[in-house]
Amino acid sequence: MPQTNRQVRLAARPSGLPRRADFEFTSEAVPAPGPGEFVVTVSHLSIDPAMRGWMSPRPSYIPPVKLGAVMRAGGIGRIIASEHPGFAVGEHVSGTFGVQEFAVSDGRGVMKVDTSLADLPVCMGVLGMTGLTAYFALLDVGKPKEGDTVVVSGAAGAVGSVAGQIAKIKGCRVIGIAGGPGKCRVVTEEFGFDAALDYRLPDLRRRLRELAPDGVDVYFDNVGGEILDDVLACIARGARIIICGAISQYNENEMRGPANYLMLLVQRASMTGMLVFDYADRYPEAIAALGGWYRAGRLVSRETVVTGSVEDFPETLLKLFEGANTGKLILALDGG
Amino acid sequence: MPQTNRQVRLAARPSGLPRRADFEFTSEAVPAPGPGEFVVTVSHLSIDPAMRGWMSPRPSYIPPVKLGAVMRAGGIGRIIASEHPGFAVGEHVSGTFGVQEFAVSDGRGVMKVDTSLADLPVCMGVLGMTGLTAYFALLDVGKPKEGDTVVVSGAAGAVGSVAGQIAKIKGCRVIGIAGGPGKCRVVTEEFGFDAALDYRLPDLRRRLRELAPDGVDVYFDNVGGEILDDVLACIARGARIIICGAISQYNENEMRGPANYLMLLVQRASMTGMLVFDYADRYPEAIAALGGWYRAGRLVSRETVVTGSVEDFPETLLKLFEGANTGKLILALDGG
Repeated sequence: MPQTNRQVRLAARPSGLPRRADFEFTSEAVPAPGPGEFVVTVSHLSIDPAMRGWMSPRPSYIPPVKLGAVMRAGGIGRIIASEHPGFAVGEHVSGTFGVQEFAVSDGRGVMKVDTSLADLPVCMGVLGMTGLTAYFALLDVGKPKEGDTVVVSGAAGAVGSVAGQIAKIKGCRVIGIAGGPGKCRVVTEEFGFDAALDYRLPDLRRRLRELAPDGVDVYFDNVGGEILDDVLACIARGARIIICGAISQYNENEMRGPANYLMLLVQRASMTGMLVFDYADRYPEAIAALGGWYRAGRLVSRETVVTGSVEDFPETLLKLFEGANTGKLILALDGG
Repeated sequence: MPQTNRQVRLAARPSGLPRRADFEFTSEAVPAPGPGEFVVTVSHLSIDPAMRGWMSPRPSYIPPVKLGAVMRAGGIGRIIASEHPGFAVGEHVSGTFGVQEFAVSDGRGVMKVDTSLADLPVCMGVLGMTGLTAYFALLDVGKPKEGDTVVVSGAAGAVGSVAGQIAKIKGCRVIGIAGGPGKCRVVTEEFGFDAALDYRLPDLRRRLRELAPDGVDVYFDNVGGEILDDVLACIARGARIIICGAISQYNENEMRGPANYLMLLVQRASMTGMLVFDYADRYPEAIAALGGWYRAGRLVSRETVVTGSVEDFPETLLKLFEGANTGKLILALDGG
């Protein structure tokens, strides 16, 4: 057993973008597992926009990370010690292990990772919570029909890139919205969307209207803000808008609401929020579908993997808000 | 046949509240009906918040009223001449007859009014488009279950007062939001809501949370603006928000979007727009239900009837935005 567990704890609630000073870096002894517990050495940390919300004091779907607590994070790791009958040393598992090198778990909320399916970063992305989120949000909330026009924001990002690919598999026409020509190229050339719109260029609304003259049937929103208003202006009768995230708003002190929300009335449309955890009993169905598409080459996984230590967490997190990642952003821990 | 048809036409697109100068007052000869047409003498004009939207150049669910055209309005009247085989002289009908004393119609979109059911103002309110809107919006979009907590804004208004009463009939706990102590009293004492909140008093959000500690399951929104944000802050898991109108916003040049819309994600809730016209094939079902409740005394109708001429239209319309009406606002035409 190693001796030291390096950890990143939340030291202050950020105002605006999280800064390094909002965290503290601590070390403690790696605990031995108690009865019914096991210890994981974490190899990959999932870096997600939702983390910003967990740092905020606002009430949300889970309690905020307490000041002084290890920062919440999803991770994948290998079991190095176990007193749990269901988990054996050497198995790979995913769970909310936190930003630390070693985690003790009683197995609740932990899933085994089938490393024969794909590499660990893929198991964290397309075949992990990211893929599950895209799958249930698009199919259960968005209810796309063949031939529908589906728009995805954050299209080069972790969830968006998977959502758009599933919409293509379901026979939809898919338009991605992303930041910059490089990402737009990835969206069409690697992820196979029919078209991509660069939101950094002017007149997004006009350009979207030209690409979707009959209106947008499904909008998968990961960003909120002005882009949500632009898409609302272009929705079709009976459109379904999936509220999966709002990365443009997470660092704002004043949230911006969609001023065009009355388009919901004009077009008899709906806007619905989703959280992947509600679908836990259907994860196996989704993993089977996603895995099948992945093995068949119909679903492309792309990850931006930063290699470093837990102390690189603050700067890695910022990459999300700078739009520096394509696909799933992962912090791979040296020696993890 | 009378000689002169006095009319109110849209002269200018209002900025903010509509003013008298935004209309022009014209007269023309009452036309004779052509083949397949009939002439109605209009007795009651329905004065609705949606009228403000029809004056705006913004695209909506129906085209804006053209400048120079007779102002669009729902009305009830009696047929005084007919060349239409399906409509006889003496019958009462409702339709979009416009702000004028006489209208020529080919029968499209016109419904016969059964004057044996109730007085004409009731046929325009609880048993007319108002009641139909409340019925389908609440039941089909809101999907209330027995025991749900239902909140209705504009609770003393035409649609809101009916929506809350139907929710009570369906076994819900119903909280109304209205402006001023007088209206709040009407909401509980006449319309039978369980509670009423005066939005003009401070801390609406806190008071709503106290009244609905387990959260709001269905919110029937007629007003938008700050009240929508206050209710969003109090929604329960899986809540359904019905966007039926947004009277607080219709005279604003800049619409305000719901800054708390991410509560849809936190609570896996939905916000859905509705228009009554989509339910036209089910109007008979709804009228039968509403008429049954009305006759049984379970559904109270309240109208604010202004008696005057079509030239009183601009000032009567303003009453809506001043909150001067309780229940359905109607302009009853002298001699109509």
